Amino acid sequence: MAVKSTARQRFREILGRSGCTQAASIFDPLSARIASLQGWELCKLSGSVGKFSNLAVPDDIPMANMSDLVDLCWRINRVCDACLVVDADDGGGSALNVFRTVRELEAAGVAAIEIEDNTVPQRFGVAQRRHEMIVSQEEQVGKLCAAVEARQDCSTAIVARTSALNELPRDDAMRRISAYSATGVDAIMLPGMAHGRSDIEAAMQATDLPLLLLRIPEDVLGDTDFLERARVRVRYQESILYSIVVKAMDDCLRHLQNGGTAAELADRTAEARLLRSVDRTYDMQAWQDKYVRG
Amino acid sequence: MAVKSTARQRFREILGRSGCTQAASIFDPLSARIASLQGWELCKLSGSVGKFSNLAVPDDIPMANMSDLVDLCWRINRVCDACLVVDADDGGGSALNVFRTVRELEAAGVAAIEIEDNTVPQRFGVAQRRHEMIVSQEEQVGKLCAAVEARQDCSTAIVARTSALNELPRDDAMRRISAYSATGVDAIMLPGMAHGRSDIEAAMQATDLPLLLLRIPEDVLGDTDFLERARVRVRYQESILYSIVVKAMDDCLRHLQNGGTAAELADRTAEARLLRSVDRTYDMQAWQDKYVRG
Amino acid sequence: MAVKSTARQRFREILGRSGCTQAASIFDPLSARIASLQGWELCKLSGSVGKFSNLAVPDDIPMANMSDLVDLCWRINRVCDACLVVDADDGGGSALNVFRTVRELEAAGVAAIEIEDNTVPQRFGVAQRRHEMIVSQEEQVGKLCAAVEARQDCSTAIVARTSALNELPRDDAMRRISAYSATGVDAIMLPGMAHGRSDIEAAMQATDLPLLLLRIPEDVLGDTDFLERARVRVRYQESILYSIVVKAMDDCLRHLQNGGTAAELADRTAEARLLRSVDRTYDMQAWQDKYVRG
Amino acid sequence: MAVKSTARQRFREILGRSGCTQAASIFDPLSARIASLQGWELCKLSGSVGKFSNLAVPDDIPMANMSDLVDLCWRINRVCDACLVVDADDGGGSALNVFRTVRELEAAGVAAIEIEDNTVPQRFGVAQRRHEMIVSQEEQVGKLCAAVEARQDCSTAIVARTSALNELPRDDAMRRISAYSATGVDAIMLPGMAHGRSDIEAAMQATDLPLLLLRIPEDVLGDTDFLERARVRVRYQESILYSIVVKAMDDCLRHLQNGGTAAELADRTAEARLLRSVDRTYDMQAWQDKYVRG
Repeated sequence: MAVKSTARQRFREILGRSGCTQAASIFDPLSARIASLQGWELCKLSGSVGKFSNLAVPDDIPMANMSDLVDLCWRINRVCDACLVVDADDGGGSALNVFRTVRELEAAGVAAIEIEDNTVPQRFGVAQRRHEMIVSQEEQVGKLCAAVEARQDCSTAIVARTSALNELPRDDAMRRISAYSATGVDAIMLPGMAHGRSDIEAAMQATDLPLLLLRIPEDVLGDTDFLERARVRVRYQESILYSIVVKAMDDCLRHLQNGGTAAELADRTAEARLLRSVDRTYDMQAWQDKYVRG
Repeated sequence: MAVKSTARQRFREILGRSGCTQAASIFDPLSARIASLQGWELCKLSGSVGKFSNLAVPDDIPMANMSDLVDLCWRINRVCDACLVVDADDGGGSALNVFRTVRELEAAGVAAIEIEDNTVPQRFGVAQRRHEMIVSQEEQVGKLCAAVEARQDCSTAIVARTSALNELPRDDAMRRISAYSATGVDAIMLPGMAHGRSDIEAAMQATDLPLLLLRIPEDVLGDTDFLERARVRVRYQESILYSIVVKAMDDCLRHLQNGGTAAELADRTAEARLLRSVDRTYDMQAWQDKYVRG
Repeated sequence: MAVKSTARQRFREILGRSGCTQAASIFDPLSARIASLQGWELCKLSGSVGKFSNLAVPDDIPMANMSDLVDLCWRINRVCDACLVVDADDGGGSALNVFRTVRELEAAGVAAIEIEDNTVPQRFGVAQRRHEMIVSQEEQVGKLCAAVEARQDCSTAIVARTSALNELPRDDAMRRISAYSATGVDAIMLPGMAHGRSDIEAAMQATDLPLLLLRIPEDVLGDTDFLERARVRVRYQESILYSIVVKAMDDCLRHLQNGGTAAELADRTAEARLLRSVDRTYDMQAWQDKYVRG
Repeated sequence: MAVKSTARQRFREILGRSGCTQAASIFDPLSARIASLQGWELCKLSGSVGKFSNLAVPDDIPMANMSDLVDLCWRINRVCDACLVVDADDGGGSALNVFRTVRELEAAGVAAIEIEDNTVPQRFGVAQRRHEMIVSQEEQVGKLCAAVEARQDCSTAIVARTSALNELPRDDAMRRISAYSATGVDAIMLPGMAHGRSDIEAAMQATDLPLLLLRIPEDVLGDTDFLERARVRVRYQESILYSIVVKAMDDCLRHLQNGGTAAELADRTAEARLLRSVDRTYDMQAWQDKYVRG
């Protein structure tokens, strides 16, 4: 039997490809399942929407922990064939926590793990100059080295996420990106590029690694050549899907609460074929035909 | 400090109330959270949509187990204040399995547990006369007695769900409902009433317990007096919510896959105030103001 | 059916009783199951041994999180009838985290939750004067008030654990114990009393609440009258059980690794009757006789 | 960075090696951790002791499910470096259930999955001729093919466990072993060889696959040449470890219950160095020295 290519190998193939791949911003097993059915190659689990939908806790302060995330990734991966890239926030604390975080996310089957260099305040509304929230370069380099070393499967990708270009003087930011790149990580993720094209150009100079961007800045939006030259390999959507689902749920339940009928909402419901694909009825019937005997 | 009334006590209050309470058909923590925010008193977790959304497996054949259900109920209850009524299918097998099922669902915080008298075929498409799928009255009475006895909190409600009125001669069905009612269960749930009003009248005669109905038959839909006389205390919706969410997800992801932008979907997204209520930002801010000191 | 008394009510009964109850220091479902079979009324889950046995991580630095603890408590409670008192360390961080910790431990069925006023260093070997590790009285009072308020079942006991008598001048320590007692907590837990009887006398003066002690100091060991007057209601063992199990496992596996046979270890194995009691064979057979029919 | 060899590759190496490797019969994370520290290459999780220790349910009747097993394997693998071979009973039911069982055990990180051809009675004490409990050859072949196909990592080993040699006429048993071997499984596991050497000789003739034995029969115990010729590659211990731990726990708790002191049990406790190795204190200190900076 031929070795199937794993999600991790497919993610590395995406990083190596010349074009830029869009990731589906999913937040639970159902949204990941549907993305997978539509043929998305890549799913991104942001920290925020994972916490909102699964735990009903905000993302501004640390109310969730790494075991919550691991459990969610495990449940997503059991119904989804796409590669899963997961936002692991600060990796759980120090380089000691990074060890456990990487081991457990890997065991949960993720293809790539993002670890960021900013920290989350312990309370709402703490007055803080944003760049004070970035950990020292030295500490972050230690954490990234730890993440790289902690892997049990070296095809798992470690992604250094940095808000340095937004929060620090450009030279400092470039030094950081360069230092992160030397740790053995597989890619750099930029969650915001306030200065547009020039931020990407700075990143290009600072590293040879592929880039993952949260939002393509306006001023390079159509410039495919530039994006390719800059090795922009992955583009995340904003997490609009979660917000749309919240509204759909809220509307439907309110309709029923106000005496509306199910029939009146019929045109907003999924077709039987889609529903049966989501719950693998066709797959299981084919499996039964092939293997259930006697 | 005054004792807060528990979800189980509130469910018993609903059963004792003269009117009929509609339950929200939820399927995951997020939908339960939103129902709870809207003030629904009661949430119903059907077996089908729980399996579809959480595991991507069909409901026609047994691919899920009781631990899957327990885990889902636990995750729902940690974000939802409404009473949770859960469809526990056949209770997991024999009266031995019912013991574990009741203990664990109770530990997961559910207010009421439905146990049905029909069984699920092991395969798709097995030719089977439906009433052959009903377990013997004797066996089911044993299972219901076991469920009542297994509870560690006697305010947990056990609900006998029966398709006897649809599948058996009326006399047999009435004898069953009567026998189930003598086991100590708290209510009878009728998932279908093919003969409309006359089925409900038969149930009224056979038991003094409150009734829970999946769909109010057409011919009694407006007859509040009759429904009250018949002790119809709870009415479940069809699980339309799940189907609406599947379509909303499918549409949104397809839009983005086809090059559409997030901005184009802006009118389908939830408002900030709703989003922040869902993730308890306001609750947590108030909690911080009250208790975070020093 | 009569209401069974719950584990939480039984714990409150123990606190109200004149004598002192010894708790079994368990660390996993199996040890809790055996304590329960022997009729121990109270099981204590220390943070340390829970982390060692379940996660193979040290207790000196924070490598485990509250979800790990919740999962372990859940698994313990499903096989154990005794009251479970759990050491929740610092409650997970701030008063915001205490909210989630109390809610989830309660949902996992624990009878009592200990929250301590010292913090755990982020690294091994950080030079630190121990009393610098105690959080401010103001902050801790906020956290204890939060814990009391967060409960959904007001019979859940909140226990204030304090090392103040060891770490602070006596007057400060007494002021703390007094302030903690005014928050609505149900008992005070003293993990160490370096000054023996005089520490307990100080605690007696500072609070009217029952006391839980980790080790009874030498100089009051036989003085039942004094302990009763001091309202010492619960006494924890040292966690010797865990250490004994580690050695038993290590010896057995090493014996087999060195070519030893199972037969040679026969006198160290449990009798069939004990084994069958642990796995509930007798309970399940009786249940079958009573409820499996048809 | 060099690719580390995975547990699955190491298990295949063991199957290919000329000698016979003994497996440690572990039952929980702690026992697996200690086996791993002692350098055992292989850990075996039997169904029975996993259910006893984790769930306090008997193994004679089906009270546990595949999610219980998956959760236990996941928790074992996160603290253990040895290859884990897991007894998956009948695979969860039909070939449909085998699909989910294999996928989830694989996701939990196991190296090898045993699927047996006998079934477990639904109740205690059902009169049954043992061979009536063997599923048809046709059905089992379908299930084994399904298991082989369900894998996402083709280095995961599927092991056909059969009691045919004990329960069926020898010719039938040999035909079965031969048919099982043609499904693509990686090894044959024999849980009992009532006829000693002649059973192994029959298996040798029926298959070219490696054999895993539960107990080496007396009449071949020292005959290394024969065992090698028969391709007996793995030898399981009886699950004596569990029984020893139950007794150690029972003795210790009873001692304390009867007023004994911890000091009196000091010679039965583990040394500090072993305890700190179990909880990875040394590993984490080294990790800190290497990666925690700034």
